[in-house]
Parts: sequence; C-alpha cells; structure tokens
Amino acid sequence: MIWQNKSMAPESLLLAAKRILLITHIAPDGDAIGGLLALGHALRRLGKEVMLSCSDIVPKRFFYLPGYPAIVNQASGPFDLIVSLDCSDLRRVGSLYRADEWREIPFLNIDHHVTNTRFGTLNWVEPSCVATSELVLDLCDRLGVTVDADIARCLLYGILGDTQGLRTDNVTPALLGKVMRLLEAGAPPLAQVMDQIFSRRPFNLIRAWEKTLETMQLDAERGVVWAFLTRQARCESGWPDTDLQGMSNFLITADEASLAAVFVEKDDGRVEVGMRARAGYDVARIALSFGGGGHPQAAGCEMDGPLEVAVAQVVAALKSHI
Amino acid sequence: MIWQNKSMAPESLLLAAKRILLITHIAPDGDAIGGLLALGHALRRLGKEVMLSCSDIVPKRFFYLPGYPAIVNQASGPFDLIVSLDCSDLRRVGSLYRADEWREIPFLNIDHHVTNTRFGTLNWVEPSCVATSELVLDLCDRLGVTVDADIARCLLYGILGDTQGLRTDNVTPALLGKVMRLLEAGAPPLAQVMDQIFSRRPFNLIRAWEKTLETMQLDAERGVVWAFLTRQARCESGWPDTDLQGMSNFLITADEASLAAVFVEKDDGRVEVGMRARAGYDVARIALSFGGGGHPQAAGCEMDGPLEVAVAQVVAALKSHI
Repeated sequence: MIWQNKSMAPESLLLAAKRILLITHIAPDGDAIGGLLALGHALRRLGKEVMLSCSDIVPKRFFYLPGYPAIVNQASGPFDLIVSLDCSDLRRVGSLYRADEWREIPFLNIDHHVTNTRFGTLNWVEPSCVATSELVLDLCDRLGVTVDADIARCLLYGILGDTQGLRTDNVTPALLGKVMRLLEAGAPPLAQVMDQIFSRRPFNLIRAWEKTLETMQLDAERGVVWAFLTRQARCESGWPDTDLQGMSNFLITADEASLAAVFVEKDDGRVEVGMRARAGYDVARIALSFGGGGHPQAAGCEMDGPLEVAVAQVVAALKSHI
Repeated sequence: MIWQNKSMAPESLLLAAKRILLITHIAPDGDAIGGLLALGHALRRLGKEVMLSCSDIVPKRFFYLPGYPAIVNQASGPFDLIVSLDCSDLRRVGSLYRADEWREIPFLNIDHHVTNTRFGTLNWVEPSCVATSELVLDLCDRLGVTVDADIARCLLYGILGDTQGLRTDNVTPALLGKVMRLLEAGAPPLAQVMDQIFSRRPFNLIRAWEKTLETMQLDAERGVVWAFLTRQARCESGWPDTDLQGMSNFLITADEASLAAVFVEKDDGRVEVGMRARAGYDVARIALSFGGGGHPQAAGCEMDGPLEVAVAQVVAALKSHI
C-alpha cells in the first residue's frame, strides 16, 4: 500500500488522496486552528473533499480566522487519508480518535513538537519549525497552492501565537522573512493580528487570572514560581474553561523565576499543568515524566487529582531540576 | 555658513564636523538611548570626536546596550555640531540645554515624532519612521558606516522599544526587513532583546498587580473597568513604587471594556490615576478635567485623597463619557 512507503513526501500523500480528514488537538491553540484552517483552504483549492475536525468546540477568539464554522467535533467518513496537525501524540487527538476505523487508513502526522511520538504512517515532524503553521506554509509551496489572503491570515495567526508574538528564541531572520511573505500575501497588518491574539481577553478570564495569582508562590532560591486555580475559584470567577491563555507566560516574567508552573483543576478533578522555562532550562523533560510533552521553554501535562498532590509533585520536580 | 543651507543632507553636516555633541531627551526610553549610542558608535568609526549626553541618568535597564558608560549628564564643548535624537521639542532636552552657547553652533534635529517643532538649523524629521533608531540605520548607510554588532544591538533595541515589540500599527513588511538586516548584522537574537525589554518584572510587582486585580470592577453596560491599590495593599505586596508598569494597559484588554482606570494610593494619601481608552474614546479630556493630561488613548492625573472619593469621581466621569 502507498502509505507503507515511509520515505514518501507529505505532498504526494495529499495529492493522491480525495477525501481527507484533517484533525488537530484538544484544547486547540492558535497554531492548531490556524494550521488546520490554512491546510483546509489549500486542499479545497486543489479540489479535495476535506473535513476539518477537533474534539473540542472552537473557542470564540478563533472566529477571527476565515473558515472556522466548517470545523466539526465528529469525524464521519469514509476518508482515504487522515492528517493530524500539531498533535504530539494520539491522546492529543481526543475523543475523535477511532482506533479500529482509522487503522486501515493512511495517517499523515504533521507537527513541530520535539516530543512527537511518530504515531503516523508518515510522520513529517520538524522541531526546527516555530509552528505547525510554518510547516503548512512550506506545504502550500510543495502542493503548488498560492498563498492567498485567507491562508496568510490563518498561518500568520498560528506563527504569532506559537512564538508569543515573535518573542520565542526560535525566531530567526528566515522566519521573519516568512512573516513578511504572509503580510505581502494579504494577511492583515501585523498590529491587528497581534492585537487579536494578545490584547483581548474576557473580563472573567482576568478574574480567573486574579484568583490564580492569589495563590502564587515563589521559591526565590531555586527560581521556581507557581500558582493554581481550584475548580471552585474558577467557578467563582465565571471562567468556564481550564485554558487560562497565557497565565504561565505571565508568571515566567518574574525576574526571580527560571521555571514557572500553573495548575488548573478541571471539572472532573483532574489537573492541567502548564510549565514555562527561561532559556537554558527545560520543562519538556519534566512534562514528559508526568505523561505530557511540549518544548523546552513551554510544556504541559494532565494529571490525576487531587490538586494539592499534583502541585506538590510537579513543584518538587521543578525544584530538583534547578 | 554651512548650516544655513537648509536643503543640506544630514550626513553632509555630520561628515563636515569634527567635534560633535549628541543629545537625547529627558526620561529616556529605549529608542532614545539606542539611537544615541548607535550614532555615537558610527561617528567614532569615522574618526569623529563624539560626546553623548542626556540630562537624566541612564536607567539600569539600558546597561544591556554597548557604550552606555560614555553617556554624560553635562555637555562641555567646544563643539562644531550638535545633534539631537528623538527630541520633539527643545524642552525635552532638559537641563543640558544652553541657549546662549548653542546659538552659534549648527544644530541637526533627528526625530520621528509628528509633533516635532523643527527647532534645529537642519531638521531631519520622518514621522513615517517607527523610531529614531530606524532613521539612524538609514544614516549609517548614508555615512558609509557598516552596521556592526554593537550598532545593530542598539538599533534593534530602539526599534523594538518604540513599536512595543513590533505590535504597533506602523510596523510594515519593510520594517521587518530592517529588523532582519539588524539580526544578520550581529544583533542578539530577537527573543533575547524582546526578553530584555518586555519580559521582566519584579515578583513583588506581580503581587501588586494581584492586589489591584482583587478590587477590579466592571460596568459591563457602559464598558468601564477599574481597579485600585491601597497604600496598605501596596506595602503588603512589597512593591514600593506607585508605578504599576502596565496595569492599566492590561485592564483595557478586557473584551467588555472601552475605558479603564487604575488608582494607586501614594504614601502621602494622594491618588495617582492611569486611564486607558480603546480607539474611538478619549480619556485625555477626562484626565484634563481632573488636572492631568495625556493622549486620547492613554492619560493620567493625580488627585487628592481619600482614595474612595477619587475612585468615585473618576469612575462617574468615565461612565458619563460613555
């Protein structure tokens, strides 16, 4: 079968397919949705039948991106190719995943996470890329699809999202060249996209930040700062989501911090953990040891409760890392 | 005299001079210090005698920039050319200014502020530039000076500072091209410079933010959000200053807010008020009515206490503005 050729180029798989399922990860971020939509636009231009899917409902902040209403929470085939975007392992696919049905279908795994488990039949994993959206830009060229304004907007959103607005240490002159290219292809002005991603948040999210910051602690000697949000405090703040959208990025700005962690108690009592590290430190390893993954400077995991046990375990690991 | 030729190019004035005084404005920001140091490096390479001066002491955060120890608070001549950088009017020069001595010396005014009063004998004012540092980059080319790593670091710092990290609406693809050029010329990685400028705040300042956010209120109907920090809460947080460095910018990110205000009680019981408005609103008028001033989108004032009276008065004014 075609998909057994592991050396095949990703564009060849896509060009050979007719009915393609594109999926991205649970708790989707801007790169997940931006990359998903951009590749969807590109494949439709090639006449492909495309279904876009994510286990979680698309958060409202992504309604800025053209094509979001097409994203569904269920995948109903048949498909002759499945493509995952920005998923470092199969669990990140969430409730969409159908082991039995999908076993017989070629599976193209497109991702930039260094911790990617290579679960696809073809794995196109480029940890040197800042975002899956950067890979999708490359893929548009490989597919011969002209990057139009819609694709450019989605990809710029993804790249800015995953680089914290061009602030991560993997931003090179070459990446800036790609950003220039997206702007020239008709993406909205950089300021507008930056504003959409970084300068807007619901009032109740700010309340949730405040409830989290109330619990903030610093081990100044070891440079570890952490904070948590209980389910009850989250309810009181009126913020329904467990994604605090940048809280851990904010904590790591503390001059005294080399490592930061934010813990959010889910409705089912499990705990989502976001970790951040300054350059020279690595939280991906720690996240991995708790069943998660990510990048050296930004990683995460999900743990069993109770909250206080998860906090104690991760904080201990962070302290011993230093 | 040479300087009476108003159509002369700025580089001709600089190339003709031997002893040059470079000055920048009081309360210097990253663009002021970055542009000053970069032009100083460039002119020294051309064999010029250069004195760098600023009325205020250089803040410690700028010690990241090569050459800062050469900046003095007094200017002792003789000079055959004075160059001001990033000064919109002569008052911004501060206590350095010597009307009698300077009257006879050619004065090159290099700036990018639209409000520049053209006080020089030659005025090179380009409001289309994002930063004076962008003008200095152009000037290096005109002078035939190769942009080296020191110059590149200073200019990149200035450009990122004045664009809030490439987030202002004057950031174009062409500007990104200049940023690429500075990186390729040996500036530190973008992430490092961004980090220096934007990603560091003392832990106790974060505590002060949290104490402020605890008091946050929203009038959702009128789109007004506000918060205050009592003297006692400020002491408890361990943050000695009344400047919360961006708290009001943060509050105005609330989706529901059109206007935001932050009130900080000073040690003497008076109240510092910072106000922010989204585009289409104007807090300068409100600040003015309380004896302050500023820009339509960012203004402030200082009021008599007690705190709760100041809060009530300003919030009432903000609500009636909407």
